[in-house]
Amino acid sequence: MNTPYSSRLLEAAVNEFTRLPGIGRRTALRLSLHLLRQDPSRAEALAQSVLKLRSEVRYCIRCHNISDSELCLVCSDTHRDAATVCVVEDIRDVMAIENTAQFRGVYHVLGGIISPMDGIGPGDLNIESLVKRAEEDRISELIMALPATTEGDTTGFYLFKRLGDKVGAVTAISRGVAVGDDLEFADEVTLGRSILNRVPYQRSPG
Amino acid sequence: MNTPYSSRLLEAAVNEFTRLPGIGRRTALRLSLHLLRQDPSRAEALAQSVLKLRSEVRYCIRCHNISDSELCLVCSDTHRDAATVCVVEDIRDVMAIENTAQFRGVYHVLGGIISPMDGIGPGDLNIESLVKRAEEDRISELIMALPATTEGDTTGFYLFKRLGDKVGAVTAISRGVAVGDDLEFADEVTLGRSILNRVPYQRSPG
Repeated sequence: MNTPYSSRLLEAAVNEFTRLPGIGRRTALRLSLHLLRQDPSRAEALAQSVLKLRSEVRYCIRCHNISDSELCLVCSDTHRDAATVCVVEDIRDVMAIENTAQFRGVYHVLGGIISPMDGIGPGDLNIESLVKRAEEDRISELIMALPATTEGDTTGFYLFKRLGDKVGAVTAISRGVAVGDDLEFADEVTLGRSILNRVPYQRSPG
Repeated sequence: MNTPYSSRLLEAAVNEFTRLPGIGRRTALRLSLHLLRQDPSRAEALAQSVLKLRSEVRYCIRCHNISDSELCLVCSDTHRDAATVCVVEDIRDVMAIENTAQFRGVYHVLGGIISPMDGIGPGDLNIESLVKRAEEDRISELIMALPATTEGDTTGFYLFKRLGDKVGAVTAISRGVAVGDDLEFADEVTLGRSILNRVPYQRSPG
């Protein structure tokens, strides 16, 4: 017996799980054995949802958000402000902002950020489609919700140069000490920026 | 939009991954988005291996180890000593012992251990089939490789009473300070047992 698995089927399943990020052989084995203990319908449901996800999912033709149809649920929602466009790195950021329930505009998903170190230039991102949106539709405010890193700043500056005169205003999400955090635990750069970018005092809402 | 996912397909995949042990919503999302970035053949391979695992895997009719056929690879290997039977709690223990490459006998997988607290009695385990093996085949040595817990000791004692006079000898794997461990880090019970169960001195092999 060359393999400790004693079942090629089990070994194959473990190997497939191991290809997923952050899943080692021990975890992959635990997942496989778990599926074996469950009703067969559970393994069937997992397999079908993975297959359907990969074969049927689409990306919104307007904002590049993940979608089940041509336009995503955000872009096709007439109650949302289509003139306020929030630029994000990827669809996880869309979910994070949607979870706050504080934003009623729409999105534009770049699909990455400019990173010369990783060989990612503007041409690799969904930037031309954003320029086209700015030229064809009226964008009153373009909100940069990009990572607070050198790459994020570079991407923001590039977009500002390309789009600054095509939209009403360009803004960026605020940076500062996290809500609920003690000042002593904030890093110096964040705390320093939060002092420089101080805002008029107001009682916290709610 | 009631869901932050913007795609029901993505939401379904995340939900299915979340049903797996130790996988939260954040990890499930990471796995789903990873599959979306990969070639479709990867998602297909994962889905197929999960389906095949659940629908085609079998358990060895002799030792209850996981298997692709009626007899597992260990039981069908004529080079192994079928008269030396190692009793383990579950198939993960078989893999752990196989990984050591130190055991040339065969196994018997109980499928659990006696645990009155969890409502698991002898009748819930693969014990009758082990008694049958002991009566029909010649077992020269029955090795208890059970957990070093009260439940493991209870199970071992139960098996000893049922099988002690049906097999040549009953042994148990040795307990003691782990190889490579400093004595000061061993717990008192383990260290105490390792002194009581001392063995004739020999230079370590290899």
